[in-house]
This record gives sequence, structure tokens and C-alpha cells, in this order.
Amino acid sequence: MQYVEGYENLVELVEADDQEGLKAALNAMPSADVAEYIDEHFEVYNTLTLLDLMEAEQQAEVFGYLRPAHQQEVASHMEISVLAKLFVDMSSDERADVYSLLDVKLQDALMRRLARSEREDLLRLSSYEEGTIGAVMTSDYATIPVGANVELALKKLRQSAPEKESIYQAYVIDGKHKLMGVVSLRQLLTAAPSEMIDDLMTRDVVTVSPDMPQSEAARIISRYDLIAIPAVTEDNLLVGMVTFDDAMDVVEEEDTETMHKSASVGSLDMSLTEAGPITLYKKRINWLVLLVFVNIFSGAAITYYEDTIMAYASLLFFLPLLIASGGNSGSQTATLVIRAIATGDIGRGDGVKLFAKEILVSGLLGLSMSAAVMAVAYFRAPDIMLVVGISMFAIVMIGSLTGLLLPFLLKLVGWDPATASTPLVTTIADAVGVMVYFITATIVLGLAIG
Amino acid sequence: MQYVEGYENLVELVEADDQEGLKAALNAMPSADVAEYIDEHFEVYNTLTLLDLMEAEQQAEVFGYLRPAHQQEVASHMEISVLAKLFVDMSSDERADVYSLLDVKLQDALMRRLARSEREDLLRLSSYEEGTIGAVMTSDYATIPVGANVELALKKLRQSAPEKESIYQAYVIDGKHKLMGVVSLRQLLTAAPSEMIDDLMTRDVVTVSPDMPQSEAARIISRYDLIAIPAVTEDNLLVGMVTFDDAMDVVEEEDTETMHKSASVGSLDMSLTEAGPITLYKKRINWLVLLVFVNIFSGAAITYYEDTIMAYASLLFFLPLLIASGGNSGSQTATLVIRAIATGDIGRGDGVKLFAKEILVSGLLGLSMSAAVMAVAYFRAPDIMLVVGISMFAIVMIGSLTGLLLPFLLKLVGWDPATASTPLVTTIADAVGVMVYFITATIVLGLAIG
Repeated sequence: MQYVEGYENLVELVEADDQEGLKAALNAMPSADVAEYIDEHFEVYNTLTLLDLMEAEQQAEVFGYLRPAHQQEVASHMEISVLAKLFVDMSSDERADVYSLLDVKLQDALMRRLARSEREDLLRLSSYEEGTIGAVMTSDYATIPVGANVELALKKLRQSAPEKESIYQAYVIDGKHKLMGVVSLRQLLTAAPSEMIDDLMTRDVVTVSPDMPQSEAARIISRYDLIAIPAVTEDNLLVGMVTFDDAMDVVEEEDTETMHKSASVGSLDMSLTEAGPITLYKKRINWLVLLVFVNIFSGAAITYYEDTIMAYASLLFFLPLLIASGGNSGSQTATLVIRAIATGDIGRGDGVKLFAKEILVSGLLGLSMSAAVMAVAYFRAPDIMLVVGISMFAIVMIGSLTGLLLPFLLKLVGWDPATASTPLVTTIADAVGVMVYFITATIVLGLAIG
Repeated sequence: MQYVEGYENLVELVEADDQEGLKAALNAMPSADVAEYIDEHFEVYNTLTLLDLMEAEQQAEVFGYLRPAHQQEVASHMEISVLAKLFVDMSSDERADVYSLLDVKLQDALMRRLARSEREDLLRLSSYEEGTIGAVMTSDYATIPVGANVELALKKLRQSAPEKESIYQAYVIDGKHKLMGVVSLRQLLTAAPSEMIDDLMTRDVVTVSPDMPQSEAARIISRYDLIAIPAVTEDNLLVGMVTFDDAMDVVEEEDTETMHKSASVGSLDMSLTEAGPITLYKKRINWLVLLVFVNIFSGAAITYYEDTIMAYASLLFFLPLLIASGGNSGSQTATLVIRAIATGDIGRGDGVKLFAKEILVSGLLGLSMSAAVMAVAYFRAPDIMLVVGISMFAIVMIGSLTGLLLPFLLKLVGWDPATASTPLVTTIADAVGVMVYFITATIVLGLAIG
């Protein structure tokens, strides 16, 4: 089966009230597809009808995949007993996410219906700040008591499998829930039944803390090719697990945010097709207006050198080209640096080497660009050939260095380096470029300043 | 253990030739860390010494994590018998990657040392084009013959575990290696030993084809939260498997490439710290020079309206601000659209809705920007207030629509939408902006054109 297959007939089946047909169709569809289909085609009431037809496990999975706005709406239209049952079947991390979407009254009603252990788990998981590992980790990890042998461990995994998110990694814990080691199901399966877990387990476990940013867990999972990573407190008490699929979602969200920032778009916590015009407007207008005021400096610089321009009108011909080149080379550098910081490529004090290399690269770029623009000037306005040549070299160098340094400066003051967006770097390079150009012209052409 | 721990002493241990100390240190380090350490600190000969101290499994893992350039160098300095043994222990996808790095003579020598099945596997895997699923898939997947029961299946998985990349998903195949279904180790563990695989397996398997781009496999793995996805031929013959960790690497590479393209940097198939100055220069210069020539249009437009400028010198004050605003709003739109195409958010024919929404959003942005610039003009140059107001509105609209349409146009002609980079959109918006501004000025201020 290729995943692109259409499931066009669900709407028809619901309208015809064909329960058998619906059940057959639902059985053949992966939960993620059912959820997307529902998100796109169904209103609350038909969603409830459809969820009602599913078995408990699929129901919980499909509901977990729905868009947050849709989850919220559907949950608030569900009978509280049905919702409580659904909550029990959901994975603990998704449950906590949905819980935090509900209004306080519904949260209270729901809490009263849950067993004590579930209630505590839910409160604990939903208490972590958004963006931290705590907010994405699950408590449905599999554990094995230290001191067990392989036979006992396998028996325990078998029994607990239905309610665990993953049984492929099992965490070995002592009586106080302290993490002693990790053992994979593969290791267990290939070991002798009588072998002791203590002899088999990996003791040097790579762990994270629930307070770390989610991107940290994603980076470690990707670096070590892990299926899951345990989250522990400072005392090494096991409190949760982040799985590879959550890590993949985190990476996608982070990259989307970085790309949006790179174009000075505010952080958009929904998809572009979902976002309404007003939301999009708000995410874009602030930076645009802010940049207007920065650009006024460029305008002021031009006005200041009006006499120079009036004397050599051909200077205007090269103005857009020169200032754009500084912005372009600056945004190239900024993007390379921002991405290298995000992937962990830059980070361990090789700043000086990087700086030296960028000077060299931008010097070469500046010389080439200078040659290109002088060739144009040779035909168009030979009297200012030298001015545009010198200016181009200086402007490309300055643009590149702005793109190199700005992300680090922002990081120093605690901002996301991605805020050194292309528009910001371009705008700064523009303003500096205008000044460099006219100062060079004034000096080289021997005009009085101003 | 937190992964950030330093392993400073490996170099010292090698220099002191402390074999016991080295073995202990290597045992405690994850393979990915050992490889990074080697990449950063060790030359070929010390790398060979260190690899020699490891057990076969760790040796293969560490070697697989090394940088391609380092792998190539180390492989060419290894004794051929040692290299052949290493090859047997490596996972089939990494082996094929390394093989394609070697020179033809070494490839031949290596081939003669491998068993026939390994030789064929290697040739097959290294025959796929770069960027396709075939080039990243492994042939170390676990299979179960159709008709087996759970007991037999578990026995088979246990036996084959050491050489398989993952045993958590097993593919059920018939006598012709046709994929009949998939069963997870979790399902097997929780089923009765006598249960038949045919009754247990999932028949609607989500598959990919080896000719598809890697990003497709990554998208499906992420969408359905899969540990691995099988690759099949048109006749549904099982030929390989892509695992979640490979998918994560693919996503990281793709996102890096998209971000670099967004700033008009050519595709860089190594890290920024690794890349030499000449490589970086080459990846950047082409676009920069190309954009010089596009920017000449802006210059030509300004020159064409020189008389207008000479009559109203205050027009120059607003020039950088107006043209930058078109570029900024255009790059915002382009980035939003390019990312939405990459994540699959845009794709299913909601183009018209998106277009209408973008018109609305950019209209609102244009009005706000227009108000801001008119406020500035009110104090600075009230005689051209209307000109800058009208121009700003038009320029922001045109910039946004350029950013919206260019990615789709590029996609239509078969280019990567990310080529609609910020510098390109900005440059186009600049040139159009200059013309709009001076045409508006000429008309509103009642000047003769030219």
C-alpha cells in the first residue's frame, strides 16, 4: 500500500450511516490518516460518531493525532465518562497535552473520574513548562527491578506491553525508582533466561533532565540513534521517557521556527494553511514596521550626501546594486552560521578559526564582486569606476562580518541566534553600505563632505 | 551520565600507550562520541591503533560514524584483510556508503575478499542514485516466512538478531520474497506461541519504493511514527528497509540544504567548520554575481527617472525604505510558503484559498506600512506624502505576491521551491519597487516622464 491512497468515501459512508462500511474502512487506515481526514472533512458531531465506531486503542490514537483546536472542541462535546475512558487509553504525554487545552471546569470534572495514579501522573506531566522535555516526555516507559533475571524481565515486559509506549528499551530501577541501567528487548531476547539483568544492562546510560529544552533531547536521540531516552531528576530518579517519534516532531517544529525567524516572521505555532489572516498579519507586521525605522538611517545617509549625488548622478545607478550586495553576502553568512549553531556544528570554541576563515572567504567574495561591478562601470561610468570598486569590496566585507557576528552577539545576550534574520542583516548592511559608498565617493572624487 | 562529559584523556592514553586504560575508556563511551573524538583529535595512524583495540561490533559502529573523508583515509591505510572483516561487521547501508568512497582498485580488492551474498548485496545497495531511498536503505531487516507461527517467528528473530539492524519490526515474506505483511516484536511477545503469523500480521503495510527521494521515506516515517519502513519493488518484492535514525539524518540534511538555499548558498555537503575557504567561496559567489546583474535593472530604473529625482530630491530619502519593505515582506511570504511546501502543509490543491488569504494579509500589511511611512513623510517631506503612501502599499503587495508565486513557479518548472531565496525575491522586489515608486511620483507630482 502506498500511503497516498485516497480515502474519499468516509464522508459518503457517514452520510449513508453505513456502519459496517465505516468499520472496514477505519480498520484499513493508519490512525494518522484517519485523524488528518477528520481534521479536514468532519465537524464535531460527525467526529464523535466516527470515534464511537472505533475500538478503544484506535480511538485513543486517532484522537491523539487530531489538531489541538479540534481535540479541544471534540473533548468539550464529549460525555465526561467517555472522555475519561479515552484519557485512560491515551499515551500519557498526549493526555497531558490535551488536558492543558481544556477549560478549568472540564479539567476538574475529568480529574474526579480518574484513578489516583493517573491523576497524579497527569498533574505532574502537565506541570512542566512548554518547550521543556517534561512537557513532551511520557510516563509509559517499561521498567525492570534491579536483581531480576532475563526470564522474569521478559515476563514483566510481556505483561505490561499493552499500556507501555515502547517496550524495546526497558529501564532497570531500584526500590526508590533510581535509574540503574538500561537493557534493550533485543539483548533480553538473545540472552539466556537465567542471566542476571545486572550483568546484561548498560550502566552508562545517556539521560536528560525534564527541565532541559526539548531540542536537547532531540539532538541526543539523533546523535546516538536512540529509540528513546530516559529523563531523570538530579538524584537520578527516573521520571519519564522521550521517544524518537516525539524527537522527530520537535526537530520539525524547531526547524520551522528557525526558518520563519530567518525571514523575520514571528513564531507561528500552527500550520500556514490553518493560520487565519489576522494571525499571519500580527506575526509579520512588527518586524516590518521596525525595519522601516531602521531603513530611515539609509535614507538619512543618502540625503546627507545629496550634493555628492547631484554632482555625480551616475552614482545613483550603482546604489541599489552596491547596497544589495552587502545584504546578500551578509544573509549568506548569517544563514550558514545560524544553521551551524542549531545543528551543533559550531559550539566548542572554534570561533577564532571560523572568524579567520570568514574574513578570507568574504575577502575573496569582495574582490570578485568588485571586479564584476568595475567591469560594468567601465562601460557605464568610467569616472566612478574606482569608487564603486572600492565600495563594493568594503560593503561585501562589512555585510559578511555583520552576518557572522550578529548571531553570536544575539546569543550572548540570551536571544535566539535565528533572530539575526535576513531582513535585519540586510537592513543593517544597507545603511552601512550607503554610508561607505558616499564617503568613498566624497574622498576619491575629492568633493567636500556634505 | 550526561552526554556532555569530556573524554579529554584519550589522547594522553594513546600517547602513553596505556592499552588497559584505553579499553576501559572506550567501553564507557557511546560509539558516536568515540567517532567524533577521533574525527577531531586523531590522525590516521592513531585511529588505526584505536580501532584495533575495540571489539568487532564497536569497531564497525565507530567506523560507521566517522566523517566520510576520514573513513576514506583510514580505509585506504588498512590492511585489506582487516578492512574486509570490518565490512562484514558493518550495517549494510553504511558499508555501501563507505564502498562508494573507495578508489576502484581498493573496491576490486575488497570485493574479492567478500562472500558472494555480501558482494551482491554491496553492489546492489551502492548502485542506487544518491538521494534516493535505495542509497540509504539497509538490507539487514528481519524476515519471517509466511505460514510460521509465533513460536517459530520468535525463534527466528532470536537467531538472526546479531546481524540485523532492527528486530522490532519483522517483515512476513512468501517464497519469492514478496512482502505479505508486517508484525512487530511487541505483537509477537504478547501473542500465544501457537498463534499463526497470518492472523496476527498487519496486511496494509505502508511501503516506499527504492527510487523515491529519501525525504519521502523520512516524511512517512515521521507521519506514522514508524521505527522502520520497508522498501519494495513494483511487484511488491522486499528489497530494503529505512530506519527512523536514517530518517532523522535525512531530515537534518534536507533542512540544512533548504536553509542554505534560502540565502542563495549552494548545496554544501559537509559542515561549515569542515568546509575550506575555497569551497565556501564557490558555493556563494555564483548567486552573488548573478544578483549583481539583476540589480542593474534597479540602477537603470533610477537613472531613467533622474529628472524626477533632481526635481524632488526628498524622494531619495524614502528610496531605501520603500524598496527594502517590498523585499522584506516578500521574503516573509516566500519563507512561509517554502517551509509549508517542505512539510507537506501545502500540496493538496488549496492554492486558491492560500492566494486569497495572502492577498488579504499583504493588503493589511501594505496599509499599515503605508500609514507608518506617511507619518514619517508628514514631518520630513509633506509634499511627497501621498507618493510614498501609495508606493509603499503597492510595493508591499507586489513583494508579497512575488514571494508567494515564485516558489510555485519554480516548482512547476521542476526546480526546488527553496531556490526562491530571500536574495532573489528581494532583488526582484527591489527592481519592481524602484519603478513603482518613480512612476507613482511622476504621475502624482505631475512631472513629465523621463
